[in-house]
Amino acid sequence: MSAKEERTRRDDVAGYQGYHMTPAEFRRRGYQLVDWVANYMECVEDYPVRSRVQPGDVRAALPEEAPDGPESFDEMIADVDRAILPGITHWQSPGFFAYFPSNTSGPSILGELLSAGLGVQGMLWSTSPACTELETLVMDWVQRMLGLPEGFRSDRGGGGVIQDSASSAVLCAIVAARERATEGAINRDGASGGLTAYASEHVHSSVEKGVRVAGFGETKLRKVSTDRKYAMDVAELERAIEQDREAGLVPAFVCATVGSTSSHAFDPVAAIAEVCRREGIWLHVDAALAGTAAVCPEFRWVHDGLEGADSYCFNPHKWMFTNFDCDCFYVRDRGALVSALSVLPEYLRNAATESGAVIDYRDWQIPLGRRFRALKLWFVIRHYGVEGLRYHVRRHVELAQEFARWVDESEEFERVAPAPLTLVCFRSVKGDEATERIEETVNEGGRVFLTHTKLDDRYVLRLSVGQTWTEHRHVATAWEELRAAAQEV
Amino acid sequence: MSAKEERTRRDDVAGYQGYHMTPAEFRRRGYQLVDWVANYMECVEDYPVRSRVQPGDVRAALPEEAPDGPESFDEMIADVDRAILPGITHWQSPGFFAYFPSNTSGPSILGELLSAGLGVQGMLWSTSPACTELETLVMDWVQRMLGLPEGFRSDRGGGGVIQDSASSAVLCAIVAARERATEGAINRDGASGGLTAYASEHVHSSVEKGVRVAGFGETKLRKVSTDRKYAMDVAELERAIEQDREAGLVPAFVCATVGSTSSHAFDPVAAIAEVCRREGIWLHVDAALAGTAAVCPEFRWVHDGLEGADSYCFNPHKWMFTNFDCDCFYVRDRGALVSALSVLPEYLRNAATESGAVIDYRDWQIPLGRRFRALKLWFVIRHYGVEGLRYHVRRHVELAQEFARWVDESEEFERVAPAPLTLVCFRSVKGDEATERIEETVNEGGRVFLTHTKLDDRYVLRLSVGQTWTEHRHVATAWEELRAAAQEV
Repeated sequence: MSAKEERTRRDDVAGYQGYHMTPAEFRRRGYQLVDWVANYMECVEDYPVRSRVQPGDVRAALPEEAPDGPESFDEMIADVDRAILPGITHWQSPGFFAYFPSNTSGPSILGELLSAGLGVQGMLWSTSPACTELETLVMDWVQRMLGLPEGFRSDRGGGGVIQDSASSAVLCAIVAARERATEGAINRDGASGGLTAYASEHVHSSVEKGVRVAGFGETKLRKVSTDRKYAMDVAELERAIEQDREAGLVPAFVCATVGSTSSHAFDPVAAIAEVCRREGIWLHVDAALAGTAAVCPEFRWVHDGLEGADSYCFNPHKWMFTNFDCDCFYVRDRGALVSALSVLPEYLRNAATESGAVIDYRDWQIPLGRRFRALKLWFVIRHYGVEGLRYHVRRHVELAQEFARWVDESEEFERVAPAPLTLVCFRSVKGDEATERIEETVNEGGRVFLTHTKLDDRYVLRLSVGQTWTEHRHVATAWEELRAAAQEV
Repeated sequence: MSAKEERTRRDDVAGYQGYHMTPAEFRRRGYQLVDWVANYMECVEDYPVRSRVQPGDVRAALPEEAPDGPESFDEMIADVDRAILPGITHWQSPGFFAYFPSNTSGPSILGELLSAGLGVQGMLWSTSPACTELETLVMDWVQRMLGLPEGFRSDRGGGGVIQDSASSAVLCAIVAARERATEGAINRDGASGGLTAYASEHVHSSVEKGVRVAGFGETKLRKVSTDRKYAMDVAELERAIEQDREAGLVPAFVCATVGSTSSHAFDPVAAIAEVCRREGIWLHVDAALAGTAAVCPEFRWVHDGLEGADSYCFNPHKWMFTNFDCDCFYVRDRGALVSALSVLPEYLRNAATESGAVIDYRDWQIPLGRRFRALKLWFVIRHYGVEGLRYHVRRHVELAQEFARWVDESEEFERVAPAPLTLVCFRSVKGDEATERIEETVNEGGRVFLTHTKLDDRYVLRLSVGQTWTEHRHVATAWEELRAAAQEV
C-alpha cells in the first residue's frame, strides 16, 4: 500500500482521525516488528560484531531532510535493514565480549513494549500509582534476592529506586552526601569547593563526572592508590582524609567499587565502611556489573561489608537480562536523599503526597518525568525465577573461569589481574604493541569483539562474558581467534 | 502450558540453553503483547482516567517475594490486568487533560520496541555508529522542521542531542554555563556559591533542582517577577543582575520559558537574549511543551528571539507523539558543553574518538550509557510526515481555543490567563473553594482528568489538550462535566 493510500485509509477509520496509526494497523505492524526482532535474535551471530562503517557512512545513506508527507512502515523497515544495521555494533551478539555486557532478554523487551504502550508517567505516586508501587515492590524483591542489607528495604526507612544509569545514581548519592555534610547549606546557599570525595584510582569515570557536576571540582576527588589486586588501599584513604581535614577541607563522600570496570577489582568495603562511619562520611558502593552475582549464595561475598554503606547501586541492564536503562539504586536513609532533591511546585501538589503515605520517586532522581521501568525487571524476574537467574550467572562465571585457565596455561598470553567472576584481563607476552595489534586483528575479523584497558601502564585486553546468548563455543572462538592473531604478530 | 513445561521446552531447543525465552517463544509472546497494547488503545477510553486505588492497594495484590522458579507469560499478563491496570492513571486516554500531555503513537511504540530489540549502547560513536549518526541527523531534521536557528545544526558548531527530560537538559545547560562563567575553574577546583541564576517566578521546578544540584544554592536562583500575562519582566531581570554584580556575585545563567507549565506564559526571549548578550550570561530557553507548535509556520512566533540563546530544549515526548523519554536539547557552541562534561578513561579510548571526526554523545549528557532513542523519533516523523504533525498540532490548538471560547462565554467560569495554544487556565466565578470542589468532582467522575495550579494566589484549573486520541467530543465531555459540577457546588 502506498503512503497516500495508507493515509486515506487512516482518515476513513471511524473514531480515529487524521494521520494516526490506528490500533488495527498497530497490530499488523507490531507483528511485523516482533518478527523482525525475533529474526534478529536468530541471526545476530552472523553479523560482524563490531560495525565496519566509517564516520559519516550511516548519515550519507539517509535523506538530509524530513519527509513532507507520510511514509509507509515498509519503507522505514527497509531503511533499518539497508542503512541502520550496517552501522550497528551488536551488543546482543554472543560474540560480544567488549566493555561490560548490556544484555537483554525476551521478557525484558516485552516489558519495555508494555511500558511504551501504557505510556504513563511515574513522577508522583498519584500520577500512576501502579508505576510507583510495583517499583518499590520489585526493589524490595531484589533486596532479598541479592541478600542486600535489610536497611535498604522500603519498610525500614531506606528504599530502592530505578535510575537510568549508575552515573545518575552516583550523582544523586553525591548530592545527598553534600547536603548531609553541610546540613543543607549547599542546597540553600551554594558552594561545594571545600568538600572532598574519595575513590580508588580505578573508579568509574561517572564518579569523576558526578563530583564535577555537583561542584566539588575534579581536583577534590582524591584518587586513592590501590594494592596489587587493584583494590583501594584503606590506609591511603585514611591518610588522604586526615590531610584534607588538616587543610580545613570537609571530606564528604567515598565511593567504593565492587568489580571495577578496568579489572574487576573489589575494594575492601567493610574496612572502608569502618573509616566512613568513624569520620561521618557518606559511603556509596558501586557494584554496577558485579552486583548481579549475589543472586547466587556462593557469590554473596561481593557485598561483604555493604551493611555499612549509605547507598548502593547495581545494573540489571548489564548482567541481569534487562535492557538498558535499569539501574537499581538503594539508600539506607531516604530522608537524606529526598531532602536533597525535593522541590514541590503548586501544579504537582496532591492529596496523596500531602498525606505522607506514598513515595514520590521524582524526589529520588534528577529528572521529573519517569517511565514505567519496573515492568521489564518484574517480567525478567518472573520469567527466569531466582533459580533461572542463578543458572545463567553460574554459566557465565564458568565460561570466564575456563577462559582464564586457557590464558594461564598458554605460552602466548599472560593474565594480569585476578578474575573472580566474568572479566578476564590478559595480554600478549610480547608486550603492548603486540597486544594492541592482536586486539585489532581479532576485532576486524568480526566474529568476536573485545576491548582494552591499561593496568600499571600496560596495554591489557579485557574479555567480559555476559551476553545473553553466549555459550561455550563463542568463548572458544574468541580464544581461537586470539591465538591465531598472536601467531601472526 | 505450565511454567515447568515451558521451561523444559526451553531446555530442549537446540542452540539456546537454559531458561532464556527462545526467539520462537518471543515471536508468540510478542504477538500476544502487541494484541494487548492494540486492545488497550481501543479500550483506554473506557477506564476511569485517574486511578481509583488507595495507597498500598497495588502492592497488596502482588506477592511479597520474588518467585523461586519461572512463571509463565500468561500469569504475568493476567497480573497486569488484575493488579496493575487498576493502579494506572491513563495518560493515553483521550480524556486526559491534566499536567501537560505525555503523548505517544504506534510508530513511536514500535521504535521503542526496535530499540529494545537491538539493545545497543550509544555512549560513543564507536559503540554503535548508527545510534549516534541517526540521532545527529534527526536532530538536524528537527532544527529545519521547527525553523530553529541555524547555529543549532551539527555542521555549524552546535548540535542536538536526545536527553531523557527537560530537567536533565537544563542541568547540562547550567553546568556548561557555570564552566563558561568561571573559565573552567569550577570543574577543576569546585565551588559555585558565588554564581547566580535567573528565571521567571513561573519557571519549571526542574530549574530550581538543576541550580541546586550544580551547587549554586537555591537562594541564588533569582525568581524574577512577571507581568500581567505571567511573562518575565525584563526590567526586573536587569535590576536583579545589576544588584548581584554590585554585591560581588557572578550572574551566570538565565532560563527563559516558552510556554510555562502553570499558565503557558511566554517570556520575551528576544529582550532577554539582548540582556544576556550584553552581560555575557548563558541563556537557556525551555520550550518543553510549546516547541512542537513551531512545526506549523503560523506558530513559529513561539521561538521569536531564539537565535540569541545558547541552549534550547523541547520535548517530543510531550506533544509530538513520541513516548517518554525524548527531550531534544540543542546548543549553539558544543565545545562549551563537551568541555564541561567530558571525562575520558582508558577503557573508552578508541581511534574514532581520537580522530575528532565523530560525536561521542556521552560528553553531552550526565549518564554514560544511552539507548537508541532516535529510532522512535525517526519513525514518528516519517510516519506522520511534516504535514501530518502540522495537522494534529492544529487540531489540538483548535480544540483548546474552542474550549477557551466556551469558558469566556459562560457565566459559571472565568478565564484567568491568555491561552495562545493548548492550555486553558480558568476558575469558578464562586472562588477557590468552589473551583477545588469542581476539580475533585470532575476527576472522581472518571471520564476526564484535569489538574490545577495557582496564579496570583488563586486556585486555577488547567485544561491541557494534547493526548493523541483526543477529539472534539472529549473536550465537549470535559466541558459538560465541569458545568454539571459547577451547578452542584
